[in-house]
Amino acid sequence: MNDPNETSSLLAGRPPSSANSASSDTIIRQRHASAGRNRARGEEFEAMDVLSDRYQSSDYDVIENQLHTEDEQLLAKQKIPKFIWQLEMKRWFVMLLIGMTTGGYPAGVDICIDVLAGSKYSLVASYFAHKVDDISILIPFFLWMGIDVVFVFLAAMLVVYGEPVAAGSGIPQIKCYLNGVLVPHVVRFKTLLCKVIGIIFAVSGGLAVGKEGPMIHAGSVVAAGVSQGKSTTFRRDLKIFRDFRTDHEKRDFVSGGAAAGVAAAFGAPIGGVLFSLEEGASFWNQSLTWRIFFASMTCSFTLNVLLSYYNGNPWSLSSPGLINFGEFTGIDYHGYEILLFLLMGVIGGLLGALFNAINYKITVFRMKYVYRGSMCVMEVIVIAILTVSLSFLSIYLGKDCQPVTQYVENPLQLFCGDGEYSASASLFFSTPEESVKTLFHAREGSISFLTLLPFCVIYFLLATLTYGLSIPSGLFIPCLLAGAAWGRLFGMFLHYLSPTPEVFSACGLYALIGAAAQLGGVIRMTISLTVILMEATHNITYGLPLMLVLITAKWVGDIFNHGLYDIHIELHSVPLLHWGPPPVSSHIKARLVIRDWSCDGW
Amino acid sequence: MNDPNETSSLLAGRPPSSANSASSDTIIRQRHASAGRNRARGEEFEAMDVLSDRYQSSDYDVIENQLHTEDEQLLAKQKIPKFIWQLEMKRWFVMLLIGMTTGGYPAGVDICIDVLAGSKYSLVASYFAHKVDDISILIPFFLWMGIDVVFVFLAAMLVVYGEPVAAGSGIPQIKCYLNGVLVPHVVRFKTLLCKVIGIIFAVSGGLAVGKEGPMIHAGSVVAAGVSQGKSTTFRRDLKIFRDFRTDHEKRDFVSGGAAAGVAAAFGAPIGGVLFSLEEGASFWNQSLTWRIFFASMTCSFTLNVLLSYYNGNPWSLSSPGLINFGEFTGIDYHGYEILLFLLMGVIGGLLGALFNAINYKITVFRMKYVYRGSMCVMEVIVIAILTVSLSFLSIYLGKDCQPVTQYVENPLQLFCGDGEYSASASLFFSTPEESVKTLFHAREGSISFLTLLPFCVIYFLLATLTYGLSIPSGLFIPCLLAGAAWGRLFGMFLHYLSPTPEVFSACGLYALIGAAAQLGGVIRMTISLTVILMEATHNITYGLPLMLVLITAKWVGDIFNHGLYDIHIELHSVPLLHWGPPPVSSHIKARLVIRDWSCDGW
Repeated sequence: MNDPNETSSLLAGRPPSSANSASSDTIIRQRHASAGRNRARGEEFEAMDVLSDRYQSSDYDVIENQLHTEDEQLLAKQKIPKFIWQLEMKRWFVMLLIGMTTGGYPAGVDICIDVLAGSKYSLVASYFAHKVDDISILIPFFLWMGIDVVFVFLAAMLVVYGEPVAAGSGIPQIKCYLNGVLVPHVVRFKTLLCKVIGIIFAVSGGLAVGKEGPMIHAGSVVAAGVSQGKSTTFRRDLKIFRDFRTDHEKRDFVSGGAAAGVAAAFGAPIGGVLFSLEEGASFWNQSLTWRIFFASMTCSFTLNVLLSYYNGNPWSLSSPGLINFGEFTGIDYHGYEILLFLLMGVIGGLLGALFNAINYKITVFRMKYVYRGSMCVMEVIVIAILTVSLSFLSIYLGKDCQPVTQYVENPLQLFCGDGEYSASASLFFSTPEESVKTLFHAREGSISFLTLLPFCVIYFLLATLTYGLSIPSGLFIPCLLAGAAWGRLFGMFLHYLSPTPEVFSACGLYALIGAAAQLGGVIRMTISLTVILMEATHNITYGLPLMLVLITAKWVGDIFNHGLYDIHIELHSVPLLHWGPPPVSSHIKARLVIRDWSCDGW
Repeated sequence: MNDPNETSSLLAGRPPSSANSASSDTIIRQRHASAGRNRARGEEFEAMDVLSDRYQSSDYDVIENQLHTEDEQLLAKQKIPKFIWQLEMKRWFVMLLIGMTTGGYPAGVDICIDVLAGSKYSLVASYFAHKVDDISILIPFFLWMGIDVVFVFLAAMLVVYGEPVAAGSGIPQIKCYLNGVLVPHVVRFKTLLCKVIGIIFAVSGGLAVGKEGPMIHAGSVVAAGVSQGKSTTFRRDLKIFRDFRTDHEKRDFVSGGAAAGVAAAFGAPIGGVLFSLEEGASFWNQSLTWRIFFASMTCSFTLNVLLSYYNGNPWSLSSPGLINFGEFTGIDYHGYEILLFLLMGVIGGLLGALFNAINYKITVFRMKYVYRGSMCVMEVIVIAILTVSLSFLSIYLGKDCQPVTQYVENPLQLFCGDGEYSASASLFFSTPEESVKTLFHAREGSISFLTLLPFCVIYFLLATLTYGLSIPSGLFIPCLLAGAAWGRLFGMFLHYLSPTPEVFSACGLYALIGAAAQLGGVIRMTISLTVILMEATHNITYGLPLMLVLITAKWVGDIFNHGLYDIHIELHSVPLLHWGPPPVSSHIKARLVIRDWSCDGW
């Protein structure tokens, strides 16, 4: 590896920006050009494109030389059981530490966002409350914009000048790492710091990002740090856990950390294990899985205790994860609705493929033209200003006044009468998580067509623009929110068409299905995503519709392109092996593959 | 394979009983004798013992010869996508069929047991109600015994003279099958019939057996039958799904059937997938897992619809599985109770190891002395009579009268006053599933120490005696019941010791933890068992205690012996490869292993 800095910034969505990297920069450009040429030939290896030679692979295999054999013979004569037992105990202990740490700081992140975003919205709302004529309403608007710009500027500075690999959700990088590709800096402590502080500011800054993906990345970093007992960033070595300083052991712990991250993010410990398996493990190891499950359970429990304490109900254990979809009790579905869910799966697949196609174009554009650090920061600020402006315009133009009958997060009265609030503001003027919950649980008719339709379109476009910026940005919540918006629209449309008012009255359920369809259409995960959503809704009867919708969305989406994480991995030429060879490929000879791909001029 | 009949009866817990099997019988005995000799040497390969040469392995590998390559080249030139697409669609369709079938007949089994056992208990109860003096109470006793003997006689005849491989829970056989060992007859339709009808009579006959394990086996048989589109038993070939007539495809579908079986038995579709993975798959295949999940989800849904319909609440979808642990809402645990749960895990591990040790001795005894068909049937009848007699004695001698304040299944007044019922009878005089629910949910103080203690001891011993009889017999419910009994005792003891009545008042929770500990101590499954129990309780907050208890029980139990399924697999000399090599073994040379194990006289 010539220069790890470059490769890391490469995977973070930026070609290298330092002055001394001109030569390798050129190489990358050439490689991309040749990738383009190859793609034009339209071969069946499309998914692989060109591969970068900048990534090293992990050393998994034990080198079975004379020394190793003699060592083992000695061990076998000595007290093996004690040695094995101690090692095993240490592994479990490290997993316990990982679980507890990974459950600890997400609680901190959640509380920080709660405080920062809460203060921002109440401050801006207090100005909105007093100024309702056309000119002076610009004061809260500029205040809002100013706060957001400062927040996202901090987030972008941390990523661009701190640690470029901290950008994005981190899931593509972790996927590469778990599959044996060493992505430089990806599990450094500095990355963790930039990621965690960055995501607090990015979410509080009102961008269309979630904190869930970054939590998964952060969990992996914590796991790597805890298991190695040393930090390259701090140049500290605690001289513990030295047995675990092999790529194999480290990767095992990182899988545990990733699973714990999912558990923390969604309150989904089983989903976390399945995520680690689906994204990482090509070989199912019973005892490793058992340890991973232990870490994710411990994490979920720790987070639950801490958040319950923060929310004033210690030991009620009602907050198993950062995102909480709320209670879906009492909303049943009928057999015939499953056909409608399948249709929504098709829509989700189409919209997901569209999302990925737009984001692909934008990312290629960014790789070509937006690569200087200052340009990256500027871009983030532009998007932040765009987000605030569109939100403000929608609130300003939306005349959807609703009576305050149930609890509303940050109600804005604006031009509405007394005892009423603006429904547009309930979507645009809160964190994405709150908006998702509003769409899932707001009573029928509390959000009108004319509020929801522009929200849906604007948010979809903002989300495609935002993913890939130089800030930590989770993809789950933006997708869920966009999907919940069109899902609720779909449900409202059905309700409007239906002859009796009782039929299709549960538009919150349609919002949930739409959210699942959109997310499935974008990221194309399978069983782990189903289980994560099942655990997040706390409702096992939604398992079947969620699964059917995710299957359909994946099938439809796969016709057009790959999942967004895979697209980003491919764009950065990471040599990641896929699950299996292409179908009907055993007649293809190695000679053919090598000739086709190693010689650009051939 | 010389004679498939023999091998199948061998795995079913019996040496061959047919007259012409004398020679191979001798071979088996010699092998067992030599196994004993080898064991005496105390080598580290203990787990492997001696292996039978009677089992063939599945053909998984594609033979990559000239023909195959040419075939693939032709396919590659033709419309591959269409061919691949059709095959993939067919796979999903078959999984759908498997899920729907596997969800269908368990509903039937459940209803049959409900009707048969219900009629039996109400008939006997009506006699008990009128005869309460010392002599005439023998009439309902003999009636009870008579019905039970007839039921278990039918079950035993089906297994002994129908299909010996239908005995037991079937999980060891399925584990072997999924790991590539072809156990003869294990996925035949005749086996399914004997298993399903047998389990109805065995459970209705009052034995200490559950219907859950057999449902998993039955699911696998259904999957094999449906996917192959033919039945060897009926000599019918529907000439469909011919693409799937390879060992590899068949095994994939059987994993789906096993997962669907778990989903049907426990209402645990995710647990089912994890069961298939933990017991079967050594290589994690993303798309296969996705299909397995589809099958188990469909199964759970089908069963739910059918049972909801039978229970008179169509589409309420409140019966996701055969066993229902009831609602555990409102029962929380405190942080310090986790230490007590760990202690219960240790107890569960010890009692589980004891269970396995006793059952091992009994099984070896049975293999040596009880091998004729008639002897097997007689043995079953003796155990049935023993079960009824002990139950009757406990009810008769137990003077624990409780007022009828809540709903009790089959209340027996006996010597109690009016408006009271015998608490012993509520445990002994119902199906094991009902007794489990009683122990989980009966209010405090409704079952006394003196009722529970003998129940616990008697049921534990009956369960060890019963597993391995020539009847279909699940192991889950007996273990859960024995564990729930001592768990509840443990909780009552804590409550008795505590200074204030509020502390440790939830002895139902202790019953649940005890049940998990006992089951974990006996079968030593890890992540799948935790998830199955979590899904069966519908309560995600119990995840952590359940996992901790199962980890502890497994660790403690593993000090003494293997899990019961593995013990039975070893006893029948199945060449099953374990997850990994023994620790510190890479210095051992093949020469050493072969010399040690192939030459008995060496």
